[in-house]
Amino acid sequence: METQTPLKVVLLGCGVVGSQVAAGLLSENSHLAARIGAPIELTDIVVRDVNEITDPQIPKELLTTDANKAVDNADIVIELFGGIEPARTLILRALNNGASVITANKALLANHGPELYQAAANAGVDLQFEASVGGAIPIIRPIRDSLAGDHVQRILGIVNGTTNFVLEKMATEGLELSQAVKVAQDLGYAEADPSADVDGVDAAAKAAILASLAFHTRVGIDDVATEGIGAVTPEDLAWAKHTHKVLKLLAIAERTPAGLSVRVHPALISRDHPLAAVRGAFNAVFIDAQAAGPLMFYGQGAGGVATSSAVLGDFVAAARHMVQGGKVTGESTYARLPVLSAGASRSRFQIRLVVADQPGVLQQVAGLLADNQVSIASVNQHPIRGDKWPDGAANLVITTHTATESALEHVLRDLRALEPVREVLSVLRVIGDENG
Amino acid sequence: METQTPLKVVLLGCGVVGSQVAAGLLSENSHLAARIGAPIELTDIVVRDVNEITDPQIPKELLTTDANKAVDNADIVIELFGGIEPARTLILRALNNGASVITANKALLANHGPELYQAAANAGVDLQFEASVGGAIPIIRPIRDSLAGDHVQRILGIVNGTTNFVLEKMATEGLELSQAVKVAQDLGYAEADPSADVDGVDAAAKAAILASLAFHTRVGIDDVATEGIGAVTPEDLAWAKHTHKVLKLLAIAERTPAGLSVRVHPALISRDHPLAAVRGAFNAVFIDAQAAGPLMFYGQGAGGVATSSAVLGDFVAAARHMVQGGKVTGESTYARLPVLSAGASRSRFQIRLVVADQPGVLQQVAGLLADNQVSIASVNQHPIRGDKWPDGAANLVITTHTATESALEHVLRDLRALEPVREVLSVLRVIGDENG
Repeated sequence: METQTPLKVVLLGCGVVGSQVAAGLLSENSHLAARIGAPIELTDIVVRDVNEITDPQIPKELLTTDANKAVDNADIVIELFGGIEPARTLILRALNNGASVITANKALLANHGPELYQAAANAGVDLQFEASVGGAIPIIRPIRDSLAGDHVQRILGIVNGTTNFVLEKMATEGLELSQAVKVAQDLGYAEADPSADVDGVDAAAKAAILASLAFHTRVGIDDVATEGIGAVTPEDLAWAKHTHKVLKLLAIAERTPAGLSVRVHPALISRDHPLAAVRGAFNAVFIDAQAAGPLMFYGQGAGGVATSSAVLGDFVAAARHMVQGGKVTGESTYARLPVLSAGASRSRFQIRLVVADQPGVLQQVAGLLADNQVSIASVNQHPIRGDKWPDGAANLVITTHTATESALEHVLRDLRALEPVREVLSVLRVIGDENG
Repeated sequence: METQTPLKVVLLGCGVVGSQVAAGLLSENSHLAARIGAPIELTDIVVRDVNEITDPQIPKELLTTDANKAVDNADIVIELFGGIEPARTLILRALNNGASVITANKALLANHGPELYQAAANAGVDLQFEASVGGAIPIIRPIRDSLAGDHVQRILGIVNGTTNFVLEKMATEGLELSQAVKVAQDLGYAEADPSADVDGVDAAAKAAILASLAFHTRVGIDDVATEGIGAVTPEDLAWAKHTHKVLKLLAIAERTPAGLSVRVHPALISRDHPLAAVRGAFNAVFIDAQAAGPLMFYGQGAGGVATSSAVLGDFVAAARHMVQGGKVTGESTYARLPVLSAGASRSRFQIRLVVADQPGVLQQVAGLLADNQVSIASVNQHPIRGDKWPDGAANLVITTHTATESALEHVLRDLRALEPVREVLSVLRVIGDENG
């Protein structure tokens, strides 16, 4: 990369998400610069009290309490203070200065979004906020850009992981709301004061943001009819289960003949609906669009590390706009990883075979795998009845630990040559656990 | 909108997707122009033979066979010919002319992607290809932009709806592969020659595109170790079911210590994995990223209307780049739909109440709902045992058809005043069927 003046980045806030974003900007500096096409420099991290920050990943010399000075020196400002002020004033200051802004501040966007969007448009700079809804899940960009040529009909979102966890605990363990909230607090999923989650206020802010984007209409948090989970009882959940439904707190925005309906409330959903499978503290947003049909986006809705992914994605996008004017030309191939040959790929395997039903066969087969450095995870043997094997035979199903394709080829060659092996019925790879 | 020269758009191809894109560009012209900020004009639809196009939505006067002339006159070219030539030559011609290009051509990208990306970068124009993988599902943009500040570790994709449908038919109905393929053909899910799907070639092209984007490495279709579903037997599926697994054809790209492994093969997945629930001809892409953690994107992977959503989204993005330089400033509120009051929102409702266990109660309750114009979908009544109601009582669970919140409030007010009603236990909204 040629020598260029670095893009100066200022971070407002150094809490759960902010400290992870700072760590990312520092440790991934060259990776981010490669994606942007220009060097970047984190110049200031604005905090209320520099002595409160004890995270060893955060260099002390970057900490400052002088927000105005830091913002006035920035090309890009990342706002993670949360709350209305001073976030609103500082974002407007940055935009008016011509800096691009990234924010995860759902309350601010749901209350003062239009003012901020207008300021960004006037200044001709970016205002990006992927992390404001759904944490790590890319949902703002798909709605804003990917569905830009379509018409969204309805959005159903599980956008508050705390209440999703609480409702699941109530359903699976028969707990009262207060007991389930206590469990969530003990696990760090709920705040000491859980009311913003339980009362649906957090979900309502996200509903307002999603509705604004999807329907090109100003929707503030006051437009959202909001009912939390405070009145939900274990009996509600028991009856839901009895009727093959699940109960979820949903953020809903839908186009109706009379206008836009935006609301948050607990809702019974059929167990077959894709949203019904969204477990624990996960989030998901289900969208019905006129042409695209049903779409769902699923992932971690909170957490410092996960949310930092969305913030840094926005940061790269805004920085690219400054450097390259936002043109999109396909993949950039700077990483140039070696691509493995087919034989070097690793999987777990399930081998089904027919063997003679006689003593010692399992020992022979196990020895053969060991000789090829393939380790067995599980074995299932059961006799076969029927005419095909008049001398008696058994089905043997072997699941291996992770092995290379080459090693497996050797195993199969040797198995086929082994006297008691009558037939190798199938070889299938197993995905999704044990890193396999 | 002020008077401006329209952006000239040329469509290459008028097949299943192309005809839907043409219809969208024509019928949604003012909507698209509002999102772009400039008027647009579909100037030419290039086809092999103008007499082959009989769709009444397609104006005859736009049809032409002169591809070069059309392309040379375009600001934006949408390539939906498919296949390598003449698509490759025409796209390069358009890019070199300074036109932006949208394509859904997976085979071309998987074989000649780097050449096209480079040509777009040299010309400083957009090359967008959201529809090349996962049909309507926004997956290219999330990987390219939203995860730009993260590190993708692994991608697992169900990216071929035909084979997903076939494997499900084999699993649920015990069919042989050839029988299940026949069913898919009869339903229009499989081509007359199903080999590109069954042999995994279609999935391999998509794996190459996803791997290139996610790992910033040139991956062509020849780098993908490909095994289709040709050897899968009903016994494989029966055994998978027996062991609480499902069998899916997966496109896999993963970072390993030794390099990048990119492959397509049938794989056994635990029934608990989010991909296991992807049914029928749907597609889904599951991504593990270092910071974001697990993410999943789900939707329709094929079909002319669904795929046109992705093409038109790309078109709006590329056109915006031309008009506005790609800056992103939040929502645009040109639609300004009326936002309904809380009382005007419509849902289905489930009301649980305790009533006296005496004749005629159900009739009274039903009459009360009818008086409030709320229609009953189902009723469940069962007696309550226990000390709380010494005179006997019954639980009554009523599910309504769609009704407004206001109507429901009136119902609840009247229910609470009704003599045999002892207690209204809960009111919950029901979502996800009957448009409720």
